[in-house]
Amino acid sequence: MSKSETIKVTVWNEFVHEQEHDAVKKIYPDGMHTVIADALNQNDDIVARTATLQEPEHGLTEEVLAQTDVLTWWGHAAHDKVDDEVVARVQKRVLEGMGLICLHSAHFSKIFRRMLGTNCSLKWREVAEKERLWNLEPGHPITQGIGQYIELPNTEMYGERFDIPTPDKLIFVSWFEGGEVFRSGCCWERGHGRIFYFRPGHETYPIFHNAEVIKVITNAVRWAKPRVQITDVCPNSKPLETISPKDVDFGSAGIEQSSDTVG
Amino acid sequence: MSKSETIKVTVWNEFVHEQEHDAVKKIYPDGMHTVIADALNQNDDIVARTATLQEPEHGLTEEVLAQTDVLTWWGHAAHDKVDDEVVARVQKRVLEGMGLICLHSAHFSKIFRRMLGTNCSLKWREVAEKERLWNLEPGHPITQGIGQYIELPNTEMYGERFDIPTPDKLIFVSWFEGGEVFRSGCCWERGHGRIFYFRPGHETYPIFHNAEVIKVITNAVRWAKPRVQITDVCPNSKPLETISPKDVDFGSAGIEQSSDTVG
Amino acid sequence: MSKSETIKVTVWNEFVHEQEHDAVKKIYPDGMHTVIADALNQNDDIVARTATLQEPEHGLTEEVLAQTDVLTWWGHAAHDKVDDEVVARVQKRVLEGMGLICLHSAHFSKIFRRMLGTNCSLKWREVAEKERLWNLEPGHPITQGIGQYIELPNTEMYGERFDIPTPDKLIFVSWFEGGEVFRSGCCWERGHGRIFYFRPGHETYPIFHNAEVIKVITNAVRWAKPRVQITDVCPNSKPLETISPKDVDFGSAGIEQSSDTVG
Amino acid sequence: MSKSETIKVTVWNEFVHEQEHDAVKKIYPDGMHTVIADALNQNDDIVARTATLQEPEHGLTEEVLAQTDVLTWWGHAAHDKVDDEVVARVQKRVLEGMGLICLHSAHFSKIFRRMLGTNCSLKWREVAEKERLWNLEPGHPITQGIGQYIELPNTEMYGERFDIPTPDKLIFVSWFEGGEVFRSGCCWERGHGRIFYFRPGHETYPIFHNAEVIKVITNAVRWAKPRVQITDVCPNSKPLETISPKDVDFGSAGIEQSSDTVG
Repeated sequence: MSKSETIKVTVWNEFVHEQEHDAVKKIYPDGMHTVIADALNQNDDIVARTATLQEPEHGLTEEVLAQTDVLTWWGHAAHDKVDDEVVARVQKRVLEGMGLICLHSAHFSKIFRRMLGTNCSLKWREVAEKERLWNLEPGHPITQGIGQYIELPNTEMYGERFDIPTPDKLIFVSWFEGGEVFRSGCCWERGHGRIFYFRPGHETYPIFHNAEVIKVITNAVRWAKPRVQITDVCPNSKPLETISPKDVDFGSAGIEQSSDTVG
Repeated sequence: MSKSETIKVTVWNEFVHEQEHDAVKKIYPDGMHTVIADALNQNDDIVARTATLQEPEHGLTEEVLAQTDVLTWWGHAAHDKVDDEVVARVQKRVLEGMGLICLHSAHFSKIFRRMLGTNCSLKWREVAEKERLWNLEPGHPITQGIGQYIELPNTEMYGERFDIPTPDKLIFVSWFEGGEVFRSGCCWERGHGRIFYFRPGHETYPIFHNAEVIKVITNAVRWAKPRVQITDVCPNSKPLETISPKDVDFGSAGIEQSSDTVG
Repeated sequence: MSKSETIKVTVWNEFVHEQEHDAVKKIYPDGMHTVIADALNQNDDIVARTATLQEPEHGLTEEVLAQTDVLTWWGHAAHDKVDDEVVARVQKRVLEGMGLICLHSAHFSKIFRRMLGTNCSLKWREVAEKERLWNLEPGHPITQGIGQYIELPNTEMYGERFDIPTPDKLIFVSWFEGGEVFRSGCCWERGHGRIFYFRPGHETYPIFHNAEVIKVITNAVRWAKPRVQITDVCPNSKPLETISPKDVDFGSAGIEQSSDTVG
Repeated sequence: MSKSETIKVTVWNEFVHEQEHDAVKKIYPDGMHTVIADALNQNDDIVARTATLQEPEHGLTEEVLAQTDVLTWWGHAAHDKVDDEVVARVQKRVLEGMGLICLHSAHFSKIFRRMLGTNCSLKWREVAEKERLWNLEPGHPITQGIGQYIELPNTEMYGERFDIPTPDKLIFVSWFEGGEVFRSGCCWERGHGRIFYFRPGHETYPIFHNAEVIKVITNAVRWAKPRVQITDVCPNSKPLETISPKDVDFGSAGIEQSSDTVG
């Protein structure tokens, strides 16, 4: 694969639990971002780097985002520490075409809620129960190499009602040992960008060491890569057809419409 | 109809052009919000009041919103004057079930972009050209009493590409004399609330004096009225089934997930 | 409620198992259609009658369908005994605005597959296991009066992948004791009509004696009632605008397009 | 590109007008299928052959369809001459993963209506008027290489309301000189297959000699190529979890559910 076709991924992590909790540190000594990026870098067509909350501008400067095709996001304990300006910057890039993959507790991240416009609330429980993610779309790029389901022996539970806009495509639905269900893999398009939400990833279980979870994220990176890069503006536009003479004069308010883009 | 079934509408207007431009003042001497509210109040099942940018908290206090079933929104010149806190308050109410109807240049309002997550940009032109809004859904509540199309002799043009999430239901598509098309009537559901975008309404033409435009807005108010009021939280939830004994101990990070609602 | 607002329902049943199998007969001595119709007739705004496979034209003559606002359908053992002409007649009525509610094994009925265009296949198992239908849309008319979930102690299992077009709205998702999930309540619009699929209803369990199941079907009848009655044709249509003179003559093939409706 | 990645296309045409009408014959002496197939064959990754109504089994035998990745369809005067068995065979292949591209008057073909379940009616007029197809999705694979719009100087008009299920993705909306609009490029997924409807293609204008029209069809072929081939069945499925003992015995009706696939 030629260099120009390489997908540039930035793996973002708030990187808090791994530094504060031994149970998490044991599973992800260098942070879960490192595990995810290393896994993605096993693929010839992907080059992944990392960024974390603690870096200046959370590691998501204009320069980094300009060089990012797909951004993956994990956050939990520090959603409100993420700067609103960085969130607006990421949103702008997604609308221009950048892919966004939100993992697990990123359901409550500023960027996910900003992109979807809803609360993104859900039920939850942490008793290490079994989860089985059913594959509803065996033909979708995101499920290639995945069978009828993925089984995870120990997970945090997320249950419906998940407050999201109806997904463009519902990829996975989870069954939980304790009795709940959840829309665990969801696709949306917003602006020129693609968004995928994937439920697994609780910090106290070795979820990102699971080969099938990594397979799905890798597939999602390929699915979400930009197909175009367009910065939408709001242009004044000349007529393409002749406008007939008007017999009334309403005058003009003389106000030009703003052509700002979002943010 | 009993009082309890009355739909309480708040008609919001930024109310700037009507005070600054004679051409607009001539059409809407008391502001377009007054014309819209008066028209809605012709209906036994609707009680409409108004609110404007200039009032404290833009007239959208917690108390007013708590007593609002459906909010209509018109803004153009002063989108950035709308306080972010008020926008968050309105978003919260929509997610709880309140209806939201965004008119014309409200496509670029903070609240519309916040609810949809996209840029909401489009093409535009102001040459008083003819518009014909084609009715794609004659069975939908919003088009009751409307024929195959609505014709407006003089309008500002809005053209595609309109940067919005795919509507749940596309109600109207406009034809413009100058050669463009536009998705002019769009429905979405977000949280427990319903959102309708309706394109007509430029300030220099007497659009809100048009009976069919008023008919559509009236129908939309009835369609968008709350069906439920639910404030979503993110509850910890006990298992409904017996959880089998776990042979591994991952420890617990001991971190409680926040149960904040949006905003 | 005035007579004109009464919803006329026809409850259709293939009525085979109840006559051939003692286990089923014990639960539904007069057929499950009778139980469903009796339950619907408890409501002042609904008048339900029944029709079965064994009647001439399966009880679905032009006259009966012309007097039907909403048709409910249950079939299992005799899908292929249903006459294609009757199926086309029902499809035509749904496209004109009649509501259609398909119950349980009607997923494999000719009419359901005809309306959706897909195979409508699924996984199944009959071991009397527990099912819990999670309510994803507490604001939807179909779930009014239903809590977070409906629990059924003994059901046949239906599991994903359910081969259907993405529902316009996904209302219920089921959890099964044996480990599967299923999209159990699905809404679509086709033509001017509304379609609801509801999973519960296996003949060897007393599902239609369950108050919550009946509540959902009753709600669905009200949701699916016709909002309009339109027989679509394919009309030749005069221009609304002046067509500019054409400098080329392609001639005309002189072929009139057929204006037949479906079927 | 390796042979295994070549997309095998079958271009189907009813081939009636070209043999009966001189005006059409002049534009497409060997039939429009030949023009479309020749254009597709200019691409290294596509191998296109043709099939027509007049051939045995309309040229769509089991063998041909088994070797077809994407089928394009044009019909107008002889929809009812297409054998129902062939239609069922094509539908089965689409549900298994084959792509289907329906052109112009194929909106009223048996296969298109069968896949969508609706009437697919519309308004029409033949006065050689101008059409402008607006590109709503510049990031979509189908619009690559296409600008803001495609302009066709002379076309038959198709106008809304087009009786189709809401498209998964709306790609083009047409403006017509005579005053109508139309959803001219629509995507759906059904089963494991992808369907694209593209409006242009009237037989009395040289539409398939237009480079942009051919570009769109070529892009659509690449978009619609199979991602998987799965023949869905309806399997009895063993539990994945232990089923708790049941304290009631409902007996079993002893009826096995049919596992037939569609058709």
